[in-house]
Amino acid sequence: MFGERQRTFLDSRRVGRLATADAGGRPHVVPVCFALGARGVYVTIDEKPKREAPRPLKRIRNILENPSVALVVDRYEEDWSCLGWVMVRGPAEILENGEEHDRAQAMLRDRYPQYRRMALEGLPVIAIRAERVTGWGNLG
Amino acid sequence: MFGERQRTFLDSRRVGRLATADAGGRPHVVPVCFALGARGVYVTIDEKPKREAPRPLKRIRNILENPSVALVVDRYEEDWSCLGWVMVRGPAEILENGEEHDRAQAMLRDRYPQYRRMALEGLPVIAIRAERVTGWGNLG
Repeated sequence: MFGERQRTFLDSRRVGRLATADAGGRPHVVPVCFALGARGVYVTIDEKPKREAPRPLKRIRNILENPSVALVVDRYEEDWSCLGWVMVRGPAEILENGEEHDRAQAMLRDRYPQYRRMALEGLPVIAIRAERVTGWGNLG
Repeated sequence: MFGERQRTFLDSRRVGRLATADAGGRPHVVPVCFALGARGVYVTIDEKPKREAPRPLKRIRNILENPSVALVVDRYEEDWSCLGWVMVRGPAEILENGEEHDRAQAMLRDRYPQYRRMALEGLPVIAIRAERVTGWGNLG
């Protein structure tokens, strides 16, 4: 699914932006940390629902209504000959627990030391099942 | 529509990510340069359709099918106490020409010297009519 240059580029970048859409097709997009695994691209939730509004985050509600998502990972530099991006599209699944969930969070803790001091275990993971990977620009 | 901190944050950032969705609600997201004007947030197209596929870019086709868009402008740092984002949601319009189109491209050339040597005039501008602006984290 991923070419070698795309994979190397994704692994080298620290943040992506995850677009979801609700059942009416209205988009939502937020920055996310991610890890590329054999079965998907993983994003963990790292915050509990707000006390005053104890419902899942909008990105999760959107995926439950409409599983299609897009993740873009890019590089911006003032030298525009360095611009490049990789976009991953496909359905997303919410993993509440289980082996793939735990493995994804372990990969994310490995990649982001910041996660190591957070209690992620009870929080869901978004698994993006890449169906289409496109790229543009300079991925070197 | 924009709070002062949100406006200052947007003005200080150089790149955003624009999410659109097709008529079936499938998202698409790409990095974009942008400028914040009185009537909207502007993004210009800066490349002609590819010779081998002379049709508009996917972001334009999506907006024509489904005008709802979301733009996120964020800051990523390894010190996660610095993370912050502002998301702008609303319908987008495609401006092919006219006063607002030309003013938007002038703002973009002002903000990005890289645009000054490009022939943008004949290319469309995406005008995002902000209906909802949300933010998270550290915008300082």
